[in-house]
Amino acid sequence: MVNASIITIGDELLIGQTIDTNSAFIAQELNKTGVWVKRRVAVGDVYDDIWQALDEEKKRSDIIIITGGLGPTADDITKPLLCKYFGGKLVVNEEVLAHVKYLFEKIYNRPGPILERNMKQAEVPDNCTVLPNALGTAPGMWFNADGKIFISLPGVPHEMKGLITNEVLHRLQETFTMPAIVHETIFTAGQGESAIAELLLDFEAGLPADIKLAYLPSYGMVKLRLTITGVNKMALQEKLQPYYLRLQELVAPFLVSAKDEGLEEVIGNLLKASGKTMGTAESCTGGYIAHLITSIAGSSAYYKGSIVSYANEVKQNLLGVQAQTLQSVGAVSEETVKQMVAGTLERLQVDYAVATSGIMGPDGGTPEKPVGTVWIAVGNKDKTATIKLSLRFGRERNIHLAAMNALNFLRKFILTNS
Amino acid sequence: MVNASIITIGDELLIGQTIDTNSAFIAQELNKTGVWVKRRVAVGDVYDDIWQALDEEKKRSDIIIITGGLGPTADDITKPLLCKYFGGKLVVNEEVLAHVKYLFEKIYNRPGPILERNMKQAEVPDNCTVLPNALGTAPGMWFNADGKIFISLPGVPHEMKGLITNEVLHRLQETFTMPAIVHETIFTAGQGESAIAELLLDFEAGLPADIKLAYLPSYGMVKLRLTITGVNKMALQEKLQPYYLRLQELVAPFLVSAKDEGLEEVIGNLLKASGKTMGTAESCTGGYIAHLITSIAGSSAYYKGSIVSYANEVKQNLLGVQAQTLQSVGAVSEETVKQMVAGTLERLQVDYAVATSGIMGPDGGTPEKPVGTVWIAVGNKDKTATIKLSLRFGRERNIHLAAMNALNFLRKFILTNS
Repeated sequence: MVNASIITIGDELLIGQTIDTNSAFIAQELNKTGVWVKRRVAVGDVYDDIWQALDEEKKRSDIIIITGGLGPTADDITKPLLCKYFGGKLVVNEEVLAHVKYLFEKIYNRPGPILERNMKQAEVPDNCTVLPNALGTAPGMWFNADGKIFISLPGVPHEMKGLITNEVLHRLQETFTMPAIVHETIFTAGQGESAIAELLLDFEAGLPADIKLAYLPSYGMVKLRLTITGVNKMALQEKLQPYYLRLQELVAPFLVSAKDEGLEEVIGNLLKASGKTMGTAESCTGGYIAHLITSIAGSSAYYKGSIVSYANEVKQNLLGVQAQTLQSVGAVSEETVKQMVAGTLERLQVDYAVATSGIMGPDGGTPEKPVGTVWIAVGNKDKTATIKLSLRFGRERNIHLAAMNALNFLRKFILTNS
Repeated sequence: MVNASIITIGDELLIGQTIDTNSAFIAQELNKTGVWVKRRVAVGDVYDDIWQALDEEKKRSDIIIITGGLGPTADDITKPLLCKYFGGKLVVNEEVLAHVKYLFEKIYNRPGPILERNMKQAEVPDNCTVLPNALGTAPGMWFNADGKIFISLPGVPHEMKGLITNEVLHRLQETFTMPAIVHETIFTAGQGESAIAELLLDFEAGLPADIKLAYLPSYGMVKLRLTITGVNKMALQEKLQPYYLRLQELVAPFLVSAKDEGLEEVIGNLLKASGKTMGTAESCTGGYIAHLITSIAGSSAYYKGSIVSYANEVKQNLLGVQAQTLQSVGAVSEETVKQMVAGTLERLQVDYAVATSGIMGPDGGTPEKPVGTVWIAVGNKDKTATIKLSLRFGRERNIHLAAMNALNFLRKFILTNS
């Protein structure tokens, strides 16, 4: 099997200022083509550390992908280092130069002379294959050395993604005979990792050696991933299929989706299939549910909008929650979220509505309603259902969990009331 | 200087299913106490790979922090490996056992016998110091070996965070004499990385050897970070101060904040200082601006809410956008976002409003209004200002960039109209 290492370069990764999302993307894409990412290493903007990482990873992997350290500013030392590492010299590449000029003049709309540091982006080692970067000034570079492939990419995520998709993947497929990898991921909610594992005890013990089961818990959900590796993709899919189906049966009461997709996609597909619409009324989740739903392309077909009613007066004026309710039982109450659902159904003219109200912390809790208390209601014109959560985390996680629980509650409501 | 390596364990990191946020948190916290994270390595659930990573990182670093691989399911192999690596044997720790029982009975509310796999969480190597995990069943483990410190933590983010904060940091401070590190980060918007770098050419060349400047571009903003390392924190702060102030002067026209904080915090502080309120009307950003603002604790003091008007009828009914406007110039137009601002000011009764309408892609573009066209308006009772963006990325990045531009436009409007 072809192995890869990913080396990410940049002090910002080591002081924790930047979260590394690039590696996940690269790993996903390589994996689909049959390359197994064996290790990911992050090093700082330190010459010797980068050099050492190259030395070590090439001992382990057939492909070494390097991201970061190619920008136009002085803290970027990767290009000269790569040039020296592979024994080349820096020369101006005319095509890259023309592209840099084009970007500055036509796209960035910055007439006038181009800064020398930007012109320098057109310098590349003379012993690499240049990978054109349509979305930025720093080109990708492909080196063949010591029987290994080294690929250097800029760290800006959308530029790196463009290069992986348009330049890197097909070249790797031409260079290596890839094995096949097939994954199937299903996704459950409502049970912890251990309880799910208990259900799958015999199943897991009975898996053949080339099939692997992994548990991926996140935000109250557990994803289960089956992986099989071999030679022929079709044969692997066929071999995996009965295990994939059996897995779905075993966790059926908790199964949300038999695909690796988010709750917001599951709900979107349910609504599209039935031609129904939805809207949201968010207090404590503050627009996060709306954001999740609208992050799906095409969501305007079923999603009309949200009334983010952070202030009580907005709950009254725009959702019609009664002043008396807010006074007697408060905004964080079953009665309030029920009225929020009713207001949403009426004012947004939707088939389904979901509403949240809670105390996300760190302040605002009381002995009766501690931080983490959340009421959720879902409903249609005939029926409303509610649940109460008692979350016990920090603000960010409480918001995520409240949103995920609300979406899952809505999903179940749609399934049983459609 | 004390160096650390972070080893994260789990196939989910190598197939790109999970983005590693743990490392960033650990790096930040270690950094504050004066520990420099030299490398981060991610390896799969593979015995030999984990073992090798331990062998290598201990050659380089004084502290090796390991996360992941401690869960109750069968794909977790770390604990037995660590036990063997350090030559201990697994024994039941009575305190951990009592804690596991407490969690299942009192917190998770799962009466009945506890699963054997959960009871196993109470088994720890007899040669480690147990670090109690208040938030979960898997304890942290602290090993002293070969003159190095090894710390194993669960991969669940909030459990890992609790252990770092409550157990790890003070123990490290007791174990090592830490050097001091001081960072100052400022944050600019409106100019690219190279243009900012050009402004700072002489400044950067004149920095003393112990002060480092880094450029951290993200979403149309550039963060600039100065770092100084030495012995005495007070002396370092004093030495860094004039460079920090000079840096702010040099980028003054583009300076958003002299701290490492988000636009949503900058705006929150402006509004709190003036006792004003705001609301939002979001079409294309779909609640993401509301989410950013409400992610700040205490935002209810100045944020009243949002009308996420994904459907045109919601723009009409809840924001008072005229049907004629939507028909003649469309939802993605200057006139529509102006009316959305007016509707928000009136219906949410706020001092400032910001509105967005655009086409985020991948579908929905036309020759006149291609994907990436976004109109933004901000206003108060006296005045409204608008800008048009032409974004050229994927849906997710377009949403982020539209939100960031809207927030920055609002910030400037508040500064000049308060």
